[in-house]
Amino acid sequence: MSGMLGAEAVLRTLVAGGVDTCFMNPGTSEMRLVAALDEVRDIRGVLALFEGVATGAADGYARMAGRAAAVLLHLGPGLGNGLANLHNARKAFSPVVAVVGDHATYHKQYDTQLESDIETVAQNVSPWITRVERSDSIGRAVAEAVTAASGPPGQVATLIVPADLSWSEGAEASGTSGGAVNPAPEQATIRAAAAALRRGGASAILIGGAACRADELRLAESIALCAGAALFCETFPARLQRGAGMPSVTRLAYLGEVAATQLEGLRDLVLIGAKAPASFFAYPDKPSLLAPDGCQLHPLVKPGFPARDALEALAGELGAPKWKAGEDPPRPVLRHGELSLAALSAAIGALLPEGAIVSDESNTSGLGLGGATAGAPPHDWLTLTGGAIGQGLPVACGAAIACPGRKVVALQADGSALYTFQALWTMAREELDVVVVLYNNRSYGILNMELQRTGASAGGTRARRMLDLSDPDLDFVALSAGLGVPAQRVATSEEFAAAFARALSTPGPALIEAVVPSLV
Amino acid sequence: MSGMLGAEAVLRTLVAGGVDTCFMNPGTSEMRLVAALDEVRDIRGVLALFEGVATGAADGYARMAGRAAAVLLHLGPGLGNGLANLHNARKAFSPVVAVVGDHATYHKQYDTQLESDIETVAQNVSPWITRVERSDSIGRAVAEAVTAASGPPGQVATLIVPADLSWSEGAEASGTSGGAVNPAPEQATIRAAAAALRRGGASAILIGGAACRADELRLAESIALCAGAALFCETFPARLQRGAGMPSVTRLAYLGEVAATQLEGLRDLVLIGAKAPASFFAYPDKPSLLAPDGCQLHPLVKPGFPARDALEALAGELGAPKWKAGEDPPRPVLRHGELSLAALSAAIGALLPEGAIVSDESNTSGLGLGGATAGAPPHDWLTLTGGAIGQGLPVACGAAIACPGRKVVALQADGSALYTFQALWTMAREELDVVVVLYNNRSYGILNMELQRTGASAGGTRARRMLDLSDPDLDFVALSAGLGVPAQRVATSEEFAAAFARALSTPGPALIEAVVPSLV
Repeated sequence: MSGMLGAEAVLRTLVAGGVDTCFMNPGTSEMRLVAALDEVRDIRGVLALFEGVATGAADGYARMAGRAAAVLLHLGPGLGNGLANLHNARKAFSPVVAVVGDHATYHKQYDTQLESDIETVAQNVSPWITRVERSDSIGRAVAEAVTAASGPPGQVATLIVPADLSWSEGAEASGTSGGAVNPAPEQATIRAAAAALRRGGASAILIGGAACRADELRLAESIALCAGAALFCETFPARLQRGAGMPSVTRLAYLGEVAATQLEGLRDLVLIGAKAPASFFAYPDKPSLLAPDGCQLHPLVKPGFPARDALEALAGELGAPKWKAGEDPPRPVLRHGELSLAALSAAIGALLPEGAIVSDESNTSGLGLGGATAGAPPHDWLTLTGGAIGQGLPVACGAAIACPGRKVVALQADGSALYTFQALWTMAREELDVVVVLYNNRSYGILNMELQRTGASAGGTRARRMLDLSDPDLDFVALSAGLGVPAQRVATSEEFAAAFARALSTPGPALIEAVVPSLV
Repeated sequence: MSGMLGAEAVLRTLVAGGVDTCFMNPGTSEMRLVAALDEVRDIRGVLALFEGVATGAADGYARMAGRAAAVLLHLGPGLGNGLANLHNARKAFSPVVAVVGDHATYHKQYDTQLESDIETVAQNVSPWITRVERSDSIGRAVAEAVTAASGPPGQVATLIVPADLSWSEGAEASGTSGGAVNPAPEQATIRAAAAALRRGGASAILIGGAACRADELRLAESIALCAGAALFCETFPARLQRGAGMPSVTRLAYLGEVAATQLEGLRDLVLIGAKAPASFFAYPDKPSLLAPDGCQLHPLVKPGFPARDALEALAGELGAPKWKAGEDPPRPVLRHGELSLAALSAAIGALLPEGAIVSDESNTSGLGLGGATAGAPPHDWLTLTGGAIGQGLPVACGAAIACPGRKVVALQADGSALYTFQALWTMAREELDVVVVLYNNRSYGILNMELQRTGASAGGTRARRMLDLSDPDLDFVALSAGLGVPAQRVATSEEFAAAFARALSTPGPALIEAVVPSLV
């Protein structure tokens, strides 16, 4: 049979489609795809010790590179282990090609140990799922996966590759065809939104997704200023560009009560790449929808779609002047003495370098970070888009690989860190420039709060023990060292600032454990 | 509204159904279920730092207790994180009630961050899935879940509980009704199997599942001896009872080539609780089915069903005499000098205490363990039923909780350990009697072998780097200490034996890291 090995066609087609990195945690059914790394040297294989690290890294890479990353997973259980961070990638509209190996076509009938129904697992996170059926179509299937993943909207595209099709001859690499076209904004919709904003006063713009990039933010702020409207950003943007010389946009609060106050009195809300604001969770006797009754919603750009054209059209319709930078908020001064959340926020705001990429999974410990870093040099802020914790460290890995030369700062809560802590090993192996600030408050801080908010008062001792991370205390310095990342614990504000500054100026990964009081 | 809170009804019904342990990694939507732990004190909550630990522990508990365990998970992503070990539980036919919290019924429509399709994720591992629709049916739904999970066959039963139904009044606890009835063996099938075995010579019995318990094993061996048939056990039994004074049954080998040799020349193969033997994976130009061409299969008991009645009927049909203990294999003597896999196996065989529960995920490092422990005092051997690695440490947790007073020995490969290493923290918190022997060969040993077996020769440097766990080396002593379990690294055979003996005689968990050569 002519052609090339299926595995080689998979990798060559990925490369042809602009995919140069494949995060992986492979097994036997993917061995030929791994072996093909030595034939196809334009794609970089990055090993993770757990699938959730690989999928989260692919998400982080895609957010920062602006193009698809690949992730290689081992059958249904491997996909399952990677599912939570693919869920986050789905909510971020990140382009990710998930290549999932399966048993050989003829072997599936015997229902051996690892047999499972990969499609049903993938359904939850992946609108596009294809199983390769023949060697001679494997290249085309990969090309279609890259196109589907790239969008718009970006998505997780899952390609299931039976082992025998990766080790068979007769495959061909394929080029990628053009992707989906971004629909042009409808004039009537733009006009209606402009009219609503022009009425002035009780109107706001809520942006999300692609509208959170620098150019789009400038357009959005100039529109808001011109119309006298408030400007908000969705609670958990995939990538928010911010800092000195940039528009400063307020994120909607996580707590529904606070967000409802932010939106209070609104008559019109224009949605650009964001959904109608809804509470993260439901609570007894509290509304799920956060905009006030009677507030009219004007959806201009669907989540996951480019926002530039609509923003330009809206700015034009309103005659908004070109954006000009205002005065930047001051950077905080370093604190002294006892370590506190405020001191940590201040030091991060004071020291964050230009071009930093912040992977923020600080949860309850991070409440003061937004204000403290608003005047820092321009940087990117990546958040927990899908609420599935254990995203921060993997996303930091992927972002660091996508952007060599930029410093990644992972602001990481203790409880969440433990879901995908294996990411540290990948940081060490790949010598990634990631500084992890580990907020150790020895509890699932957010759950102590949520216990009360769901009406269970403070809970009894048996309940509280399920939310408590002491007994025994976690030693993140030891955990980090065990995975090859140098770490230190700091006890004062001065120690933290010194450690953070040193880590920022030293190549490679580092972890700083800050034992902090729980907010709740 | 009368009745009790939904959350309380869930726990009270579990207790009424004999479920006394709930492993958990809860979130906001499960807070009222957590709070109910203080009302319903007959069920023990056990916190895990990662869902895969909770689901694997539920599996280990169910295997050893012989009744259902509960596991509490947070929406679709939490279920996803627990999926790999639910896959293993499914393949083990372990009775597990998976309670998955979801958004409030009225909140789902807003497609907020954590919204996902829980049913599609559960489908892969759970033949029984029910979503609670009303407060007044919540107790009945839990009771049905317990009955479904308990089988036969045992299975994962998934109950989805919307948050508002757990915080609403008007629920009632429910008693559990009788479960499925085990079908009686058909006389004609028993007679045909007996006739096949009576022909003598080229016949064998392959047992699995419930046929691997002491009484059933004695029946199986007496039948095999009486008929002159060979006796094999499935490659990965959920729970195999073995040791001195017990029948010694040979497991079918993991490597298809070796298993095919074990089965060579067979004319008849009687299957009792086991499937037709098939290779774990497929390989180029190698058969998937392992019994020789023309070998007749006689399935007597389906996997997952009780085997006692069929074995007794078969023994009666053949007139097999009552089983008598033969001579036990000798226990190995302790080795001296350099640490080797053989020295480790010998020390484990020499020192394993009576009643030990071995959770075996030693993979390539464990090849010599079966022989070395055959003469050890009676013990249980739990294996990786579904091939989804990261099972060993969680199963050890669950087994230790199910059987206080018995020592659990977790024989754990390095690569696999890193999927669910968080289990150590639960061992520390619950003061579980688990001794972890960590085989650190600094590679995915099995994949180095599989790379060659799938036809990719030894692989190039880029491929081999994806299978290598050095650069940086993992320090399991530091990792273990970070999670609160005392650990030490041993360099010689004497050191290992001393450390192992000391750990066995000390209450609570301990980890011993043995740096060993890779088998491949």
